[in-house]
Amino acid sequence: MLIDGKQISKNIMEELSSEIKTITSKLGRAPYLSIILIGNNPASEVYVREKLKACKYVGIFGNLTRFDSSASEEEIESDIKKKNDNKDVDGILLQLPLPDHLDSEKLIEFIDPNKDVDGLTTENIGLLVSGNPRFVPATPLGIIELINRMGVELKGRNVVIVGRSKIVGRPLSIIMSGKGANSNATVTLCHSWTSNLIDFTSQADVLIVSTGSANTINGSMIKKGAIVIDVGINKIEDQTKKSGYRLVGDVDFDSAKTKASMITPVPGGVGPMTIAMLMKNVSLSTQL
Amino acid sequence: MLIDGKQISKNIMEELSSEIKTITSKLGRAPYLSIILIGNNPASEVYVREKLKACKYVGIFGNLTRFDSSASEEEIESDIKKKNDNKDVDGILLQLPLPDHLDSEKLIEFIDPNKDVDGLTTENIGLLVSGNPRFVPATPLGIIELINRMGVELKGRNVVIVGRSKIVGRPLSIIMSGKGANSNATVTLCHSWTSNLIDFTSQADVLIVSTGSANTINGSMIKKGAIVIDVGINKIEDQTKKSGYRLVGDVDFDSAKTKASMITPVPGGVGPMTIAMLMKNVSLSTQL
Repeated sequence: MLIDGKQISKNIMEELSSEIKTITSKLGRAPYLSIILIGNNPASEVYVREKLKACKYVGIFGNLTRFDSSASEEEIESDIKKKNDNKDVDGILLQLPLPDHLDSEKLIEFIDPNKDVDGLTTENIGLLVSGNPRFVPATPLGIIELINRMGVELKGRNVVIVGRSKIVGRPLSIIMSGKGANSNATVTLCHSWTSNLIDFTSQADVLIVSTGSANTINGSMIKKGAIVIDVGINKIEDQTKKSGYRLVGDVDFDSAKTKASMITPVPGGVGPMTIAMLMKNVSLSTQL
Repeated sequence: MLIDGKQISKNIMEELSSEIKTITSKLGRAPYLSIILIGNNPASEVYVREKLKACKYVGIFGNLTRFDSSASEEEIESDIKKKNDNKDVDGILLQLPLPDHLDSEKLIEFIDPNKDVDGLTTENIGLLVSGNPRFVPATPLGIIELINRMGVELKGRNVVIVGRSKIVGRPLSIIMSGKGANSNATVTLCHSWTSNLIDFTSQADVLIVSTGSANTINGSMIKKGAIVIDVGINKIEDQTKKSGYRLVGDVDFDSAKTKASMITPVPGGVGPMTIAMLMKNVSLSTQL
């Protein structure tokens, strides 16, 4: 069965629209998301545009502050602090990656943890580990929401996560092995140093793949009946397409779907969920 | 082979003694650990006594502040803040567990993260996850030190941790699956909801058990040649002993030792390491 992230995210966006109407009439203003974009990385331009479009759709005021790619750390710091102090700004998002001369970890720490809708400040990561999450990064949150809405129960199941990034695999492993709602799974976190990856993936009831490489996983590595969540999105050459390429995930979809009981497509799986969950975090930020 | 935590911790205490001599002459005073004990839980009394003894041994000034078990949150908060502001106090340790009417999570947050030698504040946990650890809780730190000193390389190995507590299993799983020195292991975190625990433990190259129950693991659940680290310490009845009981770990030692290539005894394994690593954290705290 296909896990239709596009449709599920649409449902969430509808729910959010109505939630945000209520918040707006209560606050006397729309929730305010401030996005900071430094330079003009083409992928970042696309993501920012999509985020602003989603804001508009659900009734969030999305504001974009642009800096030249040569902007100094002090300029960004001062802009973030101004937004921290501005009571009308609910959420602040620093679009990553940053130009090489800027230290993203350092700059993220300047964001008020109560406005950190990406959930990347040390305080918010610490709260996640402590079992008192405030903002959870949008991609893990989206994956959990997909799993919830598909009626999958994680308690006691064998979950294998491939990829240990700070924004996907690591937080997901912490949440799913924790004691929160729909968690309590036995979680194995695999990564580039894992030997015999197939030994782990072939035992997984739920397999989540976020490596950033096409074909990390194929059908032969998947247990019959497993639930497969593909977080990747990779451009590969395809001369049959007008654009000259097509988008694929980290999982070889055609061989995997013959084994999986449920699987996310790419595109249209985790991707649209991420933006919807960012909107959910902005909605939450109005309450802090 | 027995992993002799008692001997290894002695070596570390010797090293620390000399390190702390240098620090003392530099600072013009000894490093200062302030321990706060509320009430008189008998186990806590023993632990605090051992910590103070270790302080004395390595040349740390260990100071104990006692509160009645009926102490209010405000009293503790104000004492912690006074110690935060006292530049001569390097490390602050709130001995757990607290009496029921006190919220340990809330009180721990009052400790200045630069003096939080137990590594339990949200900021220090967040830093651990981010791969920039400041204070690591002493027990995980002790286990890693044991593994290092036994010359065991974790990279790419299958590590199974049984028990997901905030002070042992959870931080250890984060560290060992991370990118720091002697880490990069494939880590599975098992717990009370894990089904078929043996499926995981029997595949482990390194098996770490911290469940708080005697005999969670026996030899039949262990892979031949595995390295077994037993964090537990349980009193069980034994009429052959004068005290009427003896101390055992969470692993059935006699059956496990026939399968393991290396194993920690209880007592004399992880236990003495924990106190040595607390002293190491106090030493570190003088540098922050």
